[in-house]
Amino acid sequence: MEFEPIGVVRSNHASANGTPIQPRFATGCEGRIELRAELVEGLLDLEGFERIWILYILDRSAFRGLQVIPYRDTRPHGIFATRAPARPNPIGMSCVRLKGIRGHILDLEEVDILDGTPVLDIKPYIPEYDAYPEASAGWVEAESVRQGPRVADERFEGRR
Amino acid sequence: MEFEPIGVVRSNHASANGTPIQPRFATGCEGRIELRAELVEGLLDLEGFERIWILYILDRSAFRGLQVIPYRDTRPHGIFATRAPARPNPIGMSCVRLKGIRGHILDLEEVDILDGTPVLDIKPYIPEYDAYPEASAGWVEAESVRQGPRVADERFEGRR
Repeated sequence: MEFEPIGVVRSNHASANGTPIQPRFATGCEGRIELRAELVEGLLDLEGFERIWILYILDRSAFRGLQVIPYRDTRPHGIFATRAPARPNPIGMSCVRLKGIRGHILDLEEVDILDGTPVLDIKPYIPEYDAYPEASAGWVEAESVRQGPRVADERFEGRR
Repeated sequence: MEFEPIGVVRSNHASANGTPIQPRFATGCEGRIELRAELVEGLLDLEGFERIWILYILDRSAFRGLQVIPYRDTRPHGIFATRAPARPNPIGMSCVRLKGIRGHILDLEEVDILDGTPVLDIKPYIPEYDAYPEASAGWVEAESVRQGPRVADERFEGRR
């Protein structure tokens, strides 16, 4: 299956090193999506949503095998038990804050995505569908992980 | 960019008509992912998570233009302001309940995905990253929408 980007992310994150690993840790990080202009009609009524999901291509991370040591831990886990970017199919997913829309430009906050990243999809964040605040979260719940790094480094860098 | 499925969803949903539109409305709907056996090492430590995100190809929905009337409403919205399957890039995203793992088989509940759907990625659901229960949700918050249908019909059916 082949996908064509619908736009591109612009942010202040030039490379993985030092970039917040999730929107939750990206307070104050502004950015935007430059949607392909011919898709602008697809944004009708999106402005009422406080947050959006961005699906995007993790185009600057290489595949490093089926088990990885993620940024926040010191032990290996299966890639499907982590949110690490070095995935068999390099699709990233970030729930960012939508500040406003100007034509085909979406102004964002809490952006954890590298500048120049190709966007595959935009979906509205709907708490009824997406928020399960009580769900247990395996290895991520360990105190050592919760105290672990909140920014990325170069360990997964590479080209796709 | 080309992606290769990592596995397939098995469920009791043969076609869109009557299928719950979200896991939230799919209580009691069991299913499974049959992961490609050679990827099984990637599941290490996933079992500790109560829920997982499945990213998959919406392979039985056609593109219907940039504005659609979604299942729950009677008025058109931009496709990027809906979760409708008729998207420019047909990537679906469901937060299902993980019951258990047997080798390369993941047993699931609250499955809203059609039988035979190709899987692109599996990620752990992490409330710290994914749960924003207070986020405002635009047109979806209208009482008429909240009372609207919770199962799909054939309006977006087609082949990709």
